[in-house]
Parts: sequence; C-alpha cells; structure tokens
Amino acid sequence: MILHAQLAEDCFVVGRFPLSLLLLMNDARYPWFILVPQRENISEIQQLCPAESHQLMDESCLLSDALREAFGGDRINVAALGNVVGQLHVHHIVRYRTDDAWPMPVWGKFEPIPYVAGVRDTTMEKIAASLSTRRAIFFCKGQTEF
Amino acid sequence: MILHAQLAEDCFVVGRFPLSLLLLMNDARYPWFILVPQRENISEIQQLCPAESHQLMDESCLLSDALREAFGGDRINVAALGNVVGQLHVHHIVRYRTDDAWPMPVWGKFEPIPYVAGVRDTTMEKIAASLSTRRAIFFCKGQTEF
Repeated sequence: MILHAQLAEDCFVVGRFPLSLLLLMNDARYPWFILVPQRENISEIQQLCPAESHQLMDESCLLSDALREAFGGDRINVAALGNVVGQLHVHHIVRYRTDDAWPMPVWGKFEPIPYVAGVRDTTMEKIAASLSTRRAIFFCKGQTEF
Repeated sequence: MILHAQLAEDCFVVGRFPLSLLLLMNDARYPWFILVPQRENISEIQQLCPAESHQLMDESCLLSDALREAFGGDRINVAALGNVVGQLHVHHIVRYRTDDAWPMPVWGKFEPIPYVAGVRDTTMEKIAASLSTRRAIFFCKGQTEF
C-alpha cells in the first residue's frame, strides 16, 4: 500500500497492526493517532470486506483502550472523514476538557504545533508500551515497509 | 435504553437495527443520521463487547451504503465524538463538495436549518427504502419502544 503523500507529510509511523498502519499526527496539541488500513483504493470503511471491517474495529478498540491508559483524557474522538485526503484513515484523538479546541472537534481549529523530537519519541513510546501490555502481539513497533 | 435528552431534542427516530437506533438530525443542510447503540452506560465504542462492536460496524457499513444509494454525495463522514453528549452515538453525514461546510467537518459550523415536515418525511422514507433493499430485514422502520 502506498501511504497518501499528505499523511506521510503530516504524520510519523508508529508501527502497524495486521490491517492498519498506526500513525502519529505531528501536532503536539493533542495525542492524535491515525489508523490507515493497508488496502489499495479504499476510501470509505464500507468498502472493506466484513472481516476487514471487523479487524479495523478491533484495532480501533484496542488503540482506544491503550490511548486511555497511556494518556488518560476525557474522551477519545474517533472519526473517518476524508474530505481532504481520500485514502481511508481513521482518526483517534485523546481529548481533554482543558485542551485548546474542547468541546469542538479539532479539525481546522488551530495550526498544528509540530513536535520537538524528544516529546514525539516519548509519545510514541507511551502508546507502544500501552499496546504491548494488551493483545498487542500483533502490533509491530516502528517503520515497516508498505 | 433511555435516549439522551439532547439527542431526543435534536433528532427524529427513523427506526432501529438489532443494536442501534437510527436517528435523523434535524438539520436540513446535510443528510445527517446517527446510530445509537441500545446499551446502557456506554460512552465509547471500545466499551461494547467485541460481538456488539462488530454488530455496530455492520450497521454502520450498511447505513453508509444505503446513504450513498439514497443521497449520492461525495463522502460519508463517520464519527463518534461525544464531547457534548456523553451517550455513545455515531454520526453518519452525507457530504457534498457543494455543501455549506465542505471540506470542513460540520460540527459547530452553522446553526441547524430545521426540516419542514414534508422534506423530513421524504428524507426518512428515502433512507428506509434504501435500507429495505439490503440486508435490512433487521431494520424496523418507525418509532419503537426503547
């Protein structure tokens, strides 16, 4: 699968699940992760076959649980929008009542604050560690070929 | 299940799937539907058991397919946000490149335009008809007890 150029530019690759790449959005305002199912020419969830859509749901739930453990937060916002980037991708954003955009959605509210490398690495390590305590035998950390 | 007062105020009940109520948001700007899993005290998807989350995925995909057939559109936005209403609910919004908010998400952009009764009824009938041509033997049209 070829990752959409905009996602490749805006995000870091954290690792991958059996179906989806896990990306970290380069915006330090929120712990903001994205699942990208590794399938060609898919723009909406219902285009996946049922087994794949169930796998995506499992990966999404596993990620949401791990995000809650790693980052706390008051809410996980889960969304497949794709008005700008056509390739199917599912946002998972940890929201806090104290964050910049609360209670509004985050998209288009503020310019992103790019991570400094140390904070980015810590953020990626936190989610990887939280995933590794779960059914994360299927989660492979780090950049992989795709 | 008790429907959250805000959802009851903002929406019309279209019918229900085995797991979820199907609501129509009272905003004629967009064909905007909402699935509410009929489970008590659930605020995020990962709190459902795996079988229920797979069922929610199936209902979501079925609805998205039916929305595309009934309303066309350029994109379906699917999102579980819940920053304002805690009860788990999953938005399904048909988006057009020509709609008021495109390409931004719809939440908080504009005041809703309430439906006039005839257009509302037509909108509800269109989605019910599209669902009825699918695996919609499980979709029950109309207000039901919950």
